[in-house]
Amino acid sequence: MDITHRKVNKRVRFTDKQGKALSVQNIRIRQENHDFLFGCGGFDFIPYVLKGEEEYKQLTDSWLEIFNYATLPFYWGNYEPEEGKTNRDAIMKTAEYLNDKGVKVKGHPLCWHTECAKWLMNYDNETILKKQLERIDREVTGFAGTIDMWDVINEVVIMPIFDKYDNAVTRICKEKGRVGLIKEVFAKAHECNPDAVLLLNDFNTSIDYEILIDGCLNAGVPISAIGIQSHQHQGYWGREKLEEVLERFSHFGLPIHFTENTLISGEIMPAYIEDLNDWQVDEWPTTPEGEERQARQIEEMYRILFAHPLVEAITTWDYRDGAWLKAPSGYVRKDNSLKPSYEMLKKLVKQEWWTDTTVVTDENGEAEIEVFKGDHEVSLGDLKAQIKLVDNEEQTIVLG
Amino acid sequence: MDITHRKVNKRVRFTDKQGKALSVQNIRIRQENHDFLFGCGGFDFIPYVLKGEEEYKQLTDSWLEIFNYATLPFYWGNYEPEEGKTNRDAIMKTAEYLNDKGVKVKGHPLCWHTECAKWLMNYDNETILKKQLERIDREVTGFAGTIDMWDVINEVVIMPIFDKYDNAVTRICKEKGRVGLIKEVFAKAHECNPDAVLLLNDFNTSIDYEILIDGCLNAGVPISAIGIQSHQHQGYWGREKLEEVLERFSHFGLPIHFTENTLISGEIMPAYIEDLNDWQVDEWPTTPEGEERQARQIEEMYRILFAHPLVEAITTWDYRDGAWLKAPSGYVRKDNSLKPSYEMLKKLVKQEWWTDTTVVTDENGEAEIEVFKGDHEVSLGDLKAQIKLVDNEEQTIVLG
Repeated sequence: MDITHRKVNKRVRFTDKQGKALSVQNIRIRQENHDFLFGCGGFDFIPYVLKGEEEYKQLTDSWLEIFNYATLPFYWGNYEPEEGKTNRDAIMKTAEYLNDKGVKVKGHPLCWHTECAKWLMNYDNETILKKQLERIDREVTGFAGTIDMWDVINEVVIMPIFDKYDNAVTRICKEKGRVGLIKEVFAKAHECNPDAVLLLNDFNTSIDYEILIDGCLNAGVPISAIGIQSHQHQGYWGREKLEEVLERFSHFGLPIHFTENTLISGEIMPAYIEDLNDWQVDEWPTTPEGEERQARQIEEMYRILFAHPLVEAITTWDYRDGAWLKAPSGYVRKDNSLKPSYEMLKKLVKQEWWTDTTVVTDENGEAEIEVFKGDHEVSLGDLKAQIKLVDNEEQTIVLG
Repeated sequence: MDITHRKVNKRVRFTDKQGKALSVQNIRIRQENHDFLFGCGGFDFIPYVLKGEEEYKQLTDSWLEIFNYATLPFYWGNYEPEEGKTNRDAIMKTAEYLNDKGVKVKGHPLCWHTECAKWLMNYDNETILKKQLERIDREVTGFAGTIDMWDVINEVVIMPIFDKYDNAVTRICKEKGRVGLIKEVFAKAHECNPDAVLLLNDFNTSIDYEILIDGCLNAGVPISAIGIQSHQHQGYWGREKLEEVLERFSHFGLPIHFTENTLISGEIMPAYIEDLNDWQVDEWPTTPEGEERQARQIEEMYRILFAHPLVEAITTWDYRDGAWLKAPSGYVRKDNSLKPSYEMLKKLVKQEWWTDTTVVTDENGEAEIEVFKGDHEVSLGDLKAQIKLVDNEEQTIVLG
């Protein structure tokens, strides 16, 4: 598979601080971060940052070995269980901690019918919408600079017909229509942080979602990237479906984020279950064969997505087994031990798709470089530079 | 079922030409046309108007007994089989003939992937779109005043993924996206005849079509009415599905037209057939039991639709058995004899939902009237008036 688009491939000039060409020298280029977003749920960082428990230290340390991108929870019901009493400080501290570690953070989600605040239902629809937009303003404005990437609205295809229980967001989506509500929440998020990356996110990958996106874009909704969930508790999609989904959602020319990826290392959930949340089990063990299978599937899936020019991010949903639905869906087991999928992904992200190379400059201090896009340390003995290599534009690197 | 919204119910003043109240008189009010559009395919009028054949005279005469609204064909492939050589004169003559008979005409369709002109495929996409818009201009401008109602674009849900054969319209829909193409063709039609009733029309009544309409409306597409096809070759939808479809498509608050209705008076097409056009039979006979069933289903369906405040039109697709797919789908048999469904619909349209009444005015020449909306002849002996009664606004009727 062609991954040329993940690399910088160009002639670069190396000089010292005085502008003198570093002629005929061995220059080392060592990657420090990927431009591509290798993401994972970052929920486990919250107890670690807040309480510093040893269990979470081990867990988050291994997490940081691979990932440069975390999703943090903004579910309204948990974030603001009582009106006006938010979880802001805990999330802000965690986001700042992750930023310090070079990890980009996405907030998930600003508007969703599930895990919605119950107290909202005390209001009429006009007030619910007003509070929804105020909530977006509060979070997007308040976290700007720390969190500049948001799942603005989640699972809109099902939103107005969701009938498992009454909730405030389904009520306003019924009234405003899908695109009508999307327009409002995106407009507000964009107004509050014009530079933010704003996602529409859905588990529905059918023609429904395509038509919804099509309508939104024609209605001028400022969608930065298309979010596609891929919870595969019922079995790996496989190459064919994955390529078919990529092909269909590429038509819009927008970046694609795989926002919630799950592959299981145990028994597969039966196909007849329609809502994954209906699968309630006491135990859902990981198995040795399941772990090998999960590692193979992760490898194939990440290779396919990394090779697709429009894919900019892949986020695995659960870092540790047992997080959602008790599923063996993590890179580490419940005891924090590393699974084959962890080793597999680390090999891809930190070896195969990672740059650590030495180039020799010519008389003019120039050399051809071929490196994976991202942040790099360039060095010649004690001379060093921290630089971003992300495109094939002309570039002079000054070491000092 | 409540059909109050189909009636005018108000106090009216009757005067002579000098403005003198027609006090204590028996005034007759006799309906001449419905405000509601009782429609049917009008294709059979073309050979009659062009050649005047006796077979078609009988056929079109019985047609005119019931219907006030006809669909005429504008399938691009037939309308303009060679670039620049159109069927305009035949269609214009037929439309004018129908108008003279008090029949409103709709053109069907201006843009569709099926029955598209083959010669269009000689052009690149940009040119195809240009020619599509020019075609819309030519027809909508050219027929304005005679045809002011259009199925602007047909079956868009499937349009970009239609893969039975290559065609020019699928090509441009793939490139522009569904909503993108809808925007262009509606903008052109609206520009050419701002007063025209412009329909989006589809056989897909799923959530796909809902989301498509939602997107279009938010993108500012000037849709006048939602067109819903209901070809029931595979069996009558029944009250429950009909009401469910009405409920879902009512959310937009737009008028709803049942644009292509079919109920069968013979054997039902098997459910496994996905595209109705795939059902190729030598014979598809009408049966006595089938005809009774068809009449009952027509009655139930028309009653439900007539009772729904947003439904403004119902068009039966085939007037005569054997028209499309050889199906026994008509109101008349192949030999032009009338089927029970004909008698049933005529009873509804021309008796039960038809006004022929006499009111007695008071000292001031006033009377309460309750009549079905439409055109009426009001008379007192030789004094007559042709009037439109369509709302409950104050009205004085002058007989002369």
